[in-house]
Amino acid sequence: MIEFCLVGAGFIGPVHAANVAAHPRARLSWVIDLNLDAADALAKKHGARAGRDLAQALADPSLRAVIVCTPPRTHATIIQAAAQAGKAIFCEKPIDLDLAGVDACADVLSRSAVPFCVGFNRRFDPTHRALHDAIRTGDIGRPEMLILSSRDPEISPPDAVAAMPYGIFYDTMIHDFDMLRWLLQDEPVEIYARTACMLDAKENPHRDPDTAMVVLRMASGALVHVNSSFRSVYGYDQRIEAFGEKGMLISGNHQPTSLERHSSEGTRRDPLLYFFIDRYAESYRREIDAFVEAIEAGTTPAIGLEDGRRALMIAEAGVRSAKSGVPVVMQT
Amino acid sequence: MIEFCLVGAGFIGPVHAANVAAHPRARLSWVIDLNLDAADALAKKHGARAGRDLAQALADPSLRAVIVCTPPRTHATIIQAAAQAGKAIFCEKPIDLDLAGVDACADVLSRSAVPFCVGFNRRFDPTHRALHDAIRTGDIGRPEMLILSSRDPEISPPDAVAAMPYGIFYDTMIHDFDMLRWLLQDEPVEIYARTACMLDAKENPHRDPDTAMVVLRMASGALVHVNSSFRSVYGYDQRIEAFGEKGMLISGNHQPTSLERHSSEGTRRDPLLYFFIDRYAESYRREIDAFVEAIEAGTTPAIGLEDGRRALMIAEAGVRSAKSGVPVVMQT
Amino acid sequence: MIEFCLVGAGFIGPVHAANVAAHPRARLSWVIDLNLDAADALAKKHGARAGRDLAQALADPSLRAVIVCTPPRTHATIIQAAAQAGKAIFCEKPIDLDLAGVDACADVLSRSAVPFCVGFNRRFDPTHRALHDAIRTGDIGRPEMLILSSRDPEISPPDAVAAMPYGIFYDTMIHDFDMLRWLLQDEPVEIYARTACMLDAKENPHRDPDTAMVVLRMASGALVHVNSSFRSVYGYDQRIEAFGEKGMLISGNHQPTSLERHSSEGTRRDPLLYFFIDRYAESYRREIDAFVEAIEAGTTPAIGLEDGRRALMIAEAGVRSAKSGVPVVMQT
Amino acid sequence: MIEFCLVGAGFIGPVHAANVAAHPRARLSWVIDLNLDAADALAKKHGARAGRDLAQALADPSLRAVIVCTPPRTHATIIQAAAQAGKAIFCEKPIDLDLAGVDACADVLSRSAVPFCVGFNRRFDPTHRALHDAIRTGDIGRPEMLILSSRDPEISPPDAVAAMPYGIFYDTMIHDFDMLRWLLQDEPVEIYARTACMLDAKENPHRDPDTAMVVLRMASGALVHVNSSFRSVYGYDQRIEAFGEKGMLISGNHQPTSLERHSSEGTRRDPLLYFFIDRYAESYRREIDAFVEAIEAGTTPAIGLEDGRRALMIAEAGVRSAKSGVPVVMQT
Repeated sequence: MIEFCLVGAGFIGPVHAANVAAHPRARLSWVIDLNLDAADALAKKHGARAGRDLAQALADPSLRAVIVCTPPRTHATIIQAAAQAGKAIFCEKPIDLDLAGVDACADVLSRSAVPFCVGFNRRFDPTHRALHDAIRTGDIGRPEMLILSSRDPEISPPDAVAAMPYGIFYDTMIHDFDMLRWLLQDEPVEIYARTACMLDAKENPHRDPDTAMVVLRMASGALVHVNSSFRSVYGYDQRIEAFGEKGMLISGNHQPTSLERHSSEGTRRDPLLYFFIDRYAESYRREIDAFVEAIEAGTTPAIGLEDGRRALMIAEAGVRSAKSGVPVVMQT
Repeated sequence: MIEFCLVGAGFIGPVHAANVAAHPRARLSWVIDLNLDAADALAKKHGARAGRDLAQALADPSLRAVIVCTPPRTHATIIQAAAQAGKAIFCEKPIDLDLAGVDACADVLSRSAVPFCVGFNRRFDPTHRALHDAIRTGDIGRPEMLILSSRDPEISPPDAVAAMPYGIFYDTMIHDFDMLRWLLQDEPVEIYARTACMLDAKENPHRDPDTAMVVLRMASGALVHVNSSFRSVYGYDQRIEAFGEKGMLISGNHQPTSLERHSSEGTRRDPLLYFFIDRYAESYRREIDAFVEAIEAGTTPAIGLEDGRRALMIAEAGVRSAKSGVPVVMQT
Repeated sequence: MIEFCLVGAGFIGPVHAANVAAHPRARLSWVIDLNLDAADALAKKHGARAGRDLAQALADPSLRAVIVCTPPRTHATIIQAAAQAGKAIFCEKPIDLDLAGVDACADVLSRSAVPFCVGFNRRFDPTHRALHDAIRTGDIGRPEMLILSSRDPEISPPDAVAAMPYGIFYDTMIHDFDMLRWLLQDEPVEIYARTACMLDAKENPHRDPDTAMVVLRMASGALVHVNSSFRSVYGYDQRIEAFGEKGMLISGNHQPTSLERHSSEGTRRDPLLYFFIDRYAESYRREIDAFVEAIEAGTTPAIGLEDGRRALMIAEAGVRSAKSGVPVVMQT
Repeated sequence: MIEFCLVGAGFIGPVHAANVAAHPRARLSWVIDLNLDAADALAKKHGARAGRDLAQALADPSLRAVIVCTPPRTHATIIQAAAQAGKAIFCEKPIDLDLAGVDACADVLSRSAVPFCVGFNRRFDPTHRALHDAIRTGDIGRPEMLILSSRDPEISPPDAVAAMPYGIFYDTMIHDFDMLRWLLQDEPVEIYARTACMLDAKENPHRDPDTAMVVLRMASGALVHVNSSFRSVYGYDQRIEAFGEKGMLISGNHQPTSLERHSSEGTRRDPLLYFFIDRYAESYRREIDAFVEAIEAGTTPAIGLEDGRRALMIAEAGVRSAKSGVPVVMQT
């Protein structure tokens, strides 16, 4: 049994907690949160101990792994502490909101030997992975264009937005920036981004971009398009399309049932799954499973710090392009 | 140019008239109908002559072919006259409402050498034909089950129903009875049918069956199911499913556009095509084209009198089963 | 925590065991099987005790519930013992292979107050249930036709077939017989069935029917068709279609991913899920959850002995029709 | 009967000739082509006169309309001659390869009163039009993003490519540039384009761009993405997606049949229609019909010279961006 400490009981925390608890070879031992009530509630549900102080958990010699799902600006400190305590680390994306923070983590991690994994869960989605595998096995020959549509049903609450300007790059499209690297096994050499504020003042009071279109050129010459929105009223829209010399692949959306309703109004299917936690439930399970396996086997987790760093670099360059209105060249 | 006379200006008549008129190697010369106004109107549209008397048209030596789309009980007389005049004959289904009438036609036709074709247009539908060809080329190996769903959006007008009791067998499912023979290249040895009156007294005042389910056993052992309704509010529902040892084929429905509408209510597609003339527009074109080609080439048209007779035999046996409540054995 | 004993470690046993073990308010305490090795292996996986003797488990006062998934002919004895021991009972379908066995169980159960549930898991499938709910809320008005396609990818092993003649009725279509009652809230008054042996002598050495088509007439007048096969090479084909005065509903098949592959050969999707345990994974979870909830709340489980009895009556009548070749009238 | 002269018997010429010939109120009287054999062959098929000299046809007083489908660089001269002869003009896109040519045509047309229509046939495609109408009637509220995928199965022959550098903008995406204006009823204020040569030297010997991605910003703030390729091996891929505050619309691809083939390899559908003339057959019919109606009614055809000019302006700005690597600002 690998014992886990979860840091950050809000939002995505309960998802990871449940997956650890249900894992046959893992156990949730600690839940740490500055909000002790939140920590208590989640800990109780899974028979774990709760606390406000991470140090207390890290001092527990039976603890093997830490899951970091606090707000991004706190990640670096927690990573540093966990690494020094010799615990395996699973960190939610983004590792940090700027590269200096990531580099600080890299420094600490390079001096410890702890397994480290970034939570780019979409790599574990069965359909996205089937698309990935089809590219790798040559189904479409050389990939020439990649198109990612990444639309959230709801913008984050205003305070979260205020804390993370251009969050559509750092929090949402960062998944796509990771996916394009993983799917194409290639790095971007240029990025162009255009954003807009389409939501009204009530939905988006900070007037931070809520809509974006991006074009990237990859080292191989492949062209990539990403589009994103913070208000997709029809549900969580998550599609990837890969076009190549021998064909085209589409990773399509998911619906809760396969029911078709035929009436004089036409044929109707359910709305798309609305909540990212439902859409990617299987991915969240599988990423924890892979992390547990890596710890057990002593192998390097699939998605390392460098992956987190690269995705952040793309996000930063994208923001620079969006602000300046011109393409930004990237070093590979 | 092959000159055609159309007999019967109502209902399906204008469809055949337009297809003949648009055909590069055919011309509509005559339109005959007891209702001279109807004949006139249709003839005028295509530059043809109108009349009430078929004999007048048959006396025209340049006339090569006759299309019969009057009510079924009149078919035999018209076929006889046209055959004696040496004209090629295209006859709408059913050839007659009882086998004696068909046999009378067979007798006349056997003594003349005129090409004769029954209008089982569905054999010419591109999707149904693709299913047919896939069976023939062995895609599903030996066919084991066949399921035909055949649902009309609207019952025929009450007077037509009164004139043709159990019309759901003789007028609608007769298409399916032809399709199952054509698709399986096999004959039924037994039929069981159950019917119901589901429409209300206003829609179906004669309380003639408006809903039916049929099971047939074929000489090969294959099992066939047909279901039919006279009130499919969501459009003209026409599906065929062939199941065999190596796979399964579905000839699906057709929609007027490929537009998908996503909203918080779900994903919506257009209703199915509502009118059989829209759904089978291409089939009607192709069956006339094939008939013209057979006349030109001097070959036997694809769907002969024996096909019309076999489909009617199945309809009759089905009605006997529906009335008696027990399966009816058929001679092959 | 409700403690469970699982009787029957083979086939479906491990599925129920895992669902009980993963349930937050249930625990697997005992696994009983005549094959002690099988019991041991499964018990070990979930931290339960293993044994050959059910009495030993029933004597455990902390045991609250028994899951019966042994072969059907053993169900009655186990149900009787468990009822007398005052344990809640979840029994796999069919309850027994003949009605006398079911009646014996009914007798015992009527004299105890233990909760009893039959494992008609399909009622818990999210899509089938959405179809059920849509009928209940009037989406299609009065239901007029119901069509169930129920095709297994593989026939059971020969010895299982030898032990259960006409198993396609008793083991496979019995699910459909339950579904039609549940979906229509109606009882059949007549059944007609035709079967065939389509598999070759190697696949089906006992020449027991491997293919079937059934038509039922319901008390309401609605018509129902069921078709079934033991060899669906394209996967586990499970569809339900409900046709009514206001529309039509289709509960469609499930595919493991939503990936579309476009090439010069056409558009390809994954094969259907192959294994019933994958297709109905969610149903198996939900039926155990509902059973736990019923025990906790002291309510009657959703699917009682009478449901099991009714489904078996339909199967028996269907077999009689298949054997005699004529429809069989049923008392409601 | 409105009599037509077709100028340019190659490529798209036969499509327009057939649609004019089949139109109930139009007649093809003349076919003009420098290649007299080509003119002869096409004219013969439809009972028209053939010639090499346009002046001869324009001198025919019964001639009412001219269809221009010669190579783009010849359009201006033909338009000028036809306008001076007082004939209605239907001109294939693009009107010219540079704006000066279009302006010269505008000048001539402004001094005559002849009806003039540009052949942006996609506006007449039933599905694209349904998407257009759904936007106009407010189905998705304010449009925020538009994504057009426009992929040809085959690059044009090398000599055509040599004659039209950056033809992917001027010949292919010019359709999309018209569609985005029509769908959004809005004009672009900025365009960014990236191109690539993905085909090998044999397929694309001139190394003219064969792959492109474009992002446009519209006056309303809406963002638009267009992607295009000259080698879509899976057929003619033509999709449009409109995202707005209340929903999303997709105009999907078309397949020749609705057949689904299920096997152990998965579910397979036909390849997409391969040839643009098949995919847009209905659009070509409808645009000629609308042109005939405008002539009859004396109204201005739906797609005027200004539409042709605007689409060309976008193509030119796109080429400038592709060459310079930076976004190009456009005056509205």
